[in-house]
This record gives sequence, C-alpha cells and structure tokens, in this order.
Amino acid sequence: MITMLSDFGDRDIYVSVMKGVISQINPELRVIDLTHQIPPQNIAAARFCLMNAYPYFPDGTVHLAVVDPGVGGRRRAIAIEFAKGYLVGPDNGIFSGLLSQSPAMLQRGDSLRAITVVELTNPDYWRTAEPSRTFHGRDIFAPVAAHLACGVPLTELGNLIDSAALVQLDIAECILTETGIVGSIQYIDHFGNLVTNIPGSYIQGKTWCVKAAGLTIRGCETYSDVKVGDAIALVESHGWVEIAINSGNAQSQLHLKFGDTVEVAFES
Amino acid sequence: MITMLSDFGDRDIYVSVMKGVISQINPELRVIDLTHQIPPQNIAAARFCLMNAYPYFPDGTVHLAVVDPGVGGRRRAIAIEFAKGYLVGPDNGIFSGLLSQSPAMLQRGDSLRAITVVELTNPDYWRTAEPSRTFHGRDIFAPVAAHLACGVPLTELGNLIDSAALVQLDIAECILTETGIVGSIQYIDHFGNLVTNIPGSYIQGKTWCVKAAGLTIRGCETYSDVKVGDAIALVESHGWVEIAINSGNAQSQLHLKFGDTVEVAFES
Amino acid sequence: MITMLSDFGDRDIYVSVMKGVISQINPELRVIDLTHQIPPQNIAAARFCLMNAYPYFPDGTVHLAVVDPGVGGRRRAIAIEFAKGYLVGPDNGIFSGLLSQSPAMLQRGDSLRAITVVELTNPDYWRTAEPSRTFHGRDIFAPVAAHLACGVPLTELGNLIDSAALVQLDIAECILTETGIVGSIQYIDHFGNLVTNIPGSYIQGKTWCVKAAGLTIRGCETYSDVKVGDAIALVESHGWVEIAINSGNAQSQLHLKFGDTVEVAFES
Repeated sequence: MITMLSDFGDRDIYVSVMKGVISQINPELRVIDLTHQIPPQNIAAARFCLMNAYPYFPDGTVHLAVVDPGVGGRRRAIAIEFAKGYLVGPDNGIFSGLLSQSPAMLQRGDSLRAITVVELTNPDYWRTAEPSRTFHGRDIFAPVAAHLACGVPLTELGNLIDSAALVQLDIAECILTETGIVGSIQYIDHFGNLVTNIPGSYIQGKTWCVKAAGLTIRGCETYSDVKVGDAIALVESHGWVEIAINSGNAQSQLHLKFGDTVEVAFES
Repeated sequence: MITMLSDFGDRDIYVSVMKGVISQINPELRVIDLTHQIPPQNIAAARFCLMNAYPYFPDGTVHLAVVDPGVGGRRRAIAIEFAKGYLVGPDNGIFSGLLSQSPAMLQRGDSLRAITVVELTNPDYWRTAEPSRTFHGRDIFAPVAAHLACGVPLTELGNLIDSAALVQLDIAECILTETGIVGSIQYIDHFGNLVTNIPGSYIQGKTWCVKAAGLTIRGCETYSDVKVGDAIALVESHGWVEIAINSGNAQSQLHLKFGDTVEVAFES
Repeated sequence: MITMLSDFGDRDIYVSVMKGVISQINPELRVIDLTHQIPPQNIAAARFCLMNAYPYFPDGTVHLAVVDPGVGGRRRAIAIEFAKGYLVGPDNGIFSGLLSQSPAMLQRGDSLRAITVVELTNPDYWRTAEPSRTFHGRDIFAPVAAHLACGVPLTELGNLIDSAALVQLDIAECILTETGIVGSIQYIDHFGNLVTNIPGSYIQGKTWCVKAAGLTIRGCETYSDVKVGDAIALVESHGWVEIAINSGNAQSQLHLKFGDTVEVAFES
C-alpha cells in the first residue's frame, strides 16, 4: 500500500499522472490520498499531516510525499525505512516530524533508532534515466515508491546516508513554565479548529484553560461540552491541545493564525 | 465495498486516517468517496446526498457517513441494515432520507420494512475500547464499517433499537395544490443547479412550468432544449424537479438559495 | 483500469454515482480520477488534461471523460480505440488533443492511424435502455467504459464512424517566425504556472527567452535556477514551454490569462 501527500491540489493532472506511473509498474498496488491540498510550498503543514497520519496505516505502508519547491536543484531525493513503514520524498524537512518523538510516533511504538536512510541515486528504479527537472514526483518518487511497495529493498535504491544529516525544519516547540505551558498554533484545519504544538499528554489529569486572543477558554473534553457558538479548548484527535468553537469556526471568529502564541494555564 | 461521506473536506487528514484504519482491518476492502465537501455540520445536505447515491451501489455496500456535530455527546452511534445495503454513522437525521420513500429508494426496490437498527455499543469492533471524544469517525464508525463489510453480522455490533425512534430531520415536503405543487429548494449543486423537493414523478406526462424568483420557467427535458444562457426547469438525474440555466449558473444568476419557495404550475 | 475526468467538482455525488454504476457492473475494476475540477463546460481545459495524462497509464486503460454541455441534445456519444488505450465520452472536441500529434502522443508512440471510432448506439451496454436526458455520464458513458474495461469489443458498442468527422476544437496553434515563435497560454495550473501551446522540442538546444506581459523572461531548466520570487521560462513536465515564478504564482503576479499571446525569442 502507498499513501500520497502533495501540494498539487486537485485541479490538475499531476497527482493522477503519478498514480498512472505507479499503475504502469504494478496495477495491483493500492493508493490512498492523504491530502493534496497542502498550501503551495508549505513544508510545515505537510510535516504536520504526515506525522499525524502515519500511525493509522498498516505496517509496511509506503508514504510518498511531494512538497518540493527545490525540485531539480541541489536538495536530495531520499527514502527512509522505519520499523513499521517507509517514507519517500525530498530531503527538505517534510519528514522531520516523524523523525522526532511526536505523539503519533510514540503511540505507534515506532522508534528513531530503527531507521535507515538512502539518497535516491539509482536510476534503475526511476521512470527514466533522464528525469525532468520540474517533476520528480512523476519521474523519481512515484516509481521508487511503487518499487518499494513491490518489495525492492531500500538499499537497492541508492547510497546509505546519515539520518542525523537530514534537513530539519525550524519548528517552534512549546515551553513549560511555572504556571503552565507556552505554545503556538501549528495547524488550522478545514473547520477552522486551531491545533497547537502542545501535546495533550502535558495536561492529562489536570484542570486547565487556554489563554489566547484575549480570552480565557475552559479546557473540556468534546465540542458539545459547551453551548453551540462557544469557544472550547480540548485535546484533539491526533493528541494536541486545540482551540475550537462548537459548531463554529475558531479561525475566523477568534482571528488567530498560524504561529500565534497560546498559553495553557493550570488551576491550582 | 464501503462508501464514505463527510463534512471533513479534503485539506486535512481526517478522511485518509479513516481509510487507514479500514485498511488496517482489511487491506482488501474497497472504498469509494461519495463526497467530503458537505458544508460543515449540514446534516440536510448529507441526507440528500446519501439518499440519492444509495441506489447506484452494489448490494451489500456499507455506507459510512460522518457529519457529526454532536460527537462525544449524547447522540447515539448506529448501524442500519436494509434489504440491499448498510448504513453506519451518528443518529442525527443523516439517514432520514433513506428511511422515507425517496425516489431513489423506490427505484431500488428497497423497503422500510426490511430494516434492522443497532446502537454501536460493542467496543470489540471499535479501534480502541477508549475512543476519543472528538473523532468517532476514526475510532468507532470506520472500524465498524470495515467489520460489517468483512461479514460481521449487524447484531454483533450492539443492541437492537427501534427504527421508529431514530432522529428525523425536520425537512419541508412539497404540497399539492389545486393548480400545481408548492415546494422549495433542497440542494444546490456545483454547477449552481437548484434542486427542489418536488419529485419528478408528479409532473410526468403533463405540461408544466416553474414559478420562482419572479420568473415563469418552462418545463423541458434537457439543458440544450433552451438557448445558452436561458433558464430551464427539468427533472434532474436523481428524479427531482430542478431549475437550471443552459451552460450557466442558476444560483448566482437567479439569486435563489437553499429553502426558497418554488411553485410548479400545470397548464390545462 | 478506468480513468475519469469531468467538470462535476467534488461537492456533489455525480462522480461517486458513476463509480457506483461501474462497481455494479464489475466491483473489481480500478478507477483513477484524472481530475473533476475542469472549469464548468470548459472543453479546452479537459482536452489539455486528457492529452497530457494519456501516456502515463498502462496499455488498455479506458479514459472516461464527461465535460458535456450538450448532454441530451444532438451531440454524439462515442468511444475511440487507439493502439494503446480507449476513450469514452461526448463527441464535442474533448478528445481532439489526443487525435493530433501532441508531445504526449508522440512520446507514447501511439498513432492516429490505429484508431477506430464508434457511436454509442447499442443500449445493451447502457445502464438502462431509457437513459436520462441530463446525465449520460451515469447512464451511458460509465457503463460503456466498464464493459470496455471488462473486454467487450469496441465494435459491439455501436456503429463505426469516420474519425475524420469527429468534432474538432478551434484551438490556436503556435506560429514559427523568423526570430522565434508566437504562441499563447493554453492552460493555467493550481500553482499559477502559465502553460503555453509551444512544444518544448522547438526550443531544444537553443538559447531563448519569453516575452510576455511587457517582460523578457530568461529560458532556464527548473524553478530554482532563479531566485525565489523571480519569473522564469522553462519546459514544463508535459513538454510545453511554461512561464512560472520560483515559489510564487505567475498568474496573479504577471496578470496573464488563458489565451494571452506570448513570444519565444531565440538569441543568435
């Protein structure tokens, strides 16, 4: 099984052409779209989605991710083998969430220590030995993912490289203070829910609230714990502290955006 | 086979995570997306789509539907067995179109009398015995749909409940008058076509027109029966009276919206 | 294998109902979406996508395309057999890109001479002998595509017709001049990249620039050959000359639109 994530959107044929290339290699391979609506060139959003989707797929799934503003330049093309899955894409930080101890990785029981990384230097597994300079998704990443899913060993795909040398994104981490936690908004979903970078495990068993946008928002368990239209803080389904509005849109109603600071306060 | 419908959109990973959970249970299961672009929390639009898509799928298909503003609260999680298919989702009215004699159900030859309903109370068929409070799509509905599609009997999933006690949506029905039919707009599609709640069978074999937005619009058979840019009334493909504009957008050009009254007048 | 392309969008159930109809005929058939975001009734955009996606699918793939403003009127429903694939849809010019010697067709090694065309007149392969007047995608094209993919011979589907009599779109072609090439923008993608109708083979091995929007834009090889935010001309992945902005949106920043003239100038 292969999953696909990209910033290609769904208007054009880039995604379907990659699926065509996969089906030319093996028409029996199954492909599930994670999302193709990553904002153009937004590696941080791609990192968030990959990190949180990973634990819900079968062992051995190949995750193909193409948010690739540096295509055709000097960035490396890579593939990664974890204990329970594979990643294929550019070395630009897109996989850095999975390479840290995210809530999702901890839940899965996967571990940093098990990984092997190669640079994709073997053209035998590309669509053509002379790939385009603008669409490595079609010419390198999709065929490599298909071959991996068909059982080709990772080490056939290119030279081993050091996982410590992979590109890291400069992502803000939350900070523990004497009275709570200072974090920021790392993702905003389709409903306008504001997902912070504060792991839910940090507030477990405590009475807490969130301060943001000049408001103090009570920590609860689910949307309907407050009245329709009221703001609520809760631990969302991937395990992060989130600010939401019951049956409403927190992004547009609270005027918060990606990167804004939020603070968890514990009640004594 | 499983179909999926939700208001999750296609930007986030909610839908793909549900597909991942299904594939963890059985990677051979096939999933077809009905749509994930239901407007947030719009149970009426979800009801319309489910009701009209149902007859076009193979016998035994499991339809998984998650438009679920009450998730984690007191609304029940349910599964329904018809003579020719299954439904899985929240008990909030989302299935009420299929529980009435819609054109689609009549066409399929399915019947209210054959249904069995259970409340999903057996955690053996959930992803985890401690589901999240915010994402039953992933933790309860998707795994239950996968197990149903794999042949688990409905009655294994929980306690039998009375189908008469299911939540009904308060949906306007059309009214027959001495000279025609008074109805309203129940759905607006991507092209801006305005779908009414008047079954096409009511105008069959008659000469008719529609009065709406101050206009009298002739009843015809297909878009190209009028000039490009002209308004037309016809029976759309799911069997409802519709107002459209040939090669245009009736919603934006006629300034009509969800719920607006429209009237069919018969010519004597 | 079947691919699907339409202007149905992803809000409604039109696409999923077509997939349901295909699965009722044979649940084992695989369907890949090319795109359903063709702008409503835009046959030229559909033609571009089909022409460029075709070479990347396995031999024998059935391409089902429904951008069909004339549905239910006098336009013919057709199926086409190439040496390496099938097309099914309305005879309105949607397939005319594949019927010319596009870069993609030349690359595939497919040829005009091999084609057979039928008008879909045999209702044995439709969903119903009395198809709706508004949704031939569901009632004629999807079932015909499914039967073709299951091995029904093209000639069973209707009467042979002359490929020279198929509807052609009036698409501008580029013109060679003494100093370069005058062309126009034939497609704009999700990133705002402006794809011209000038085949990349015409500029191969030359030093060149593009003149458009009052600017002179240097011909390079990939986005990162220029600074972030700078305009660039290159040969895009389907083989056409394109104007782009590195990590930006050329459509909105250069104020160019579909059909606008662009000029390639060669340096001596």
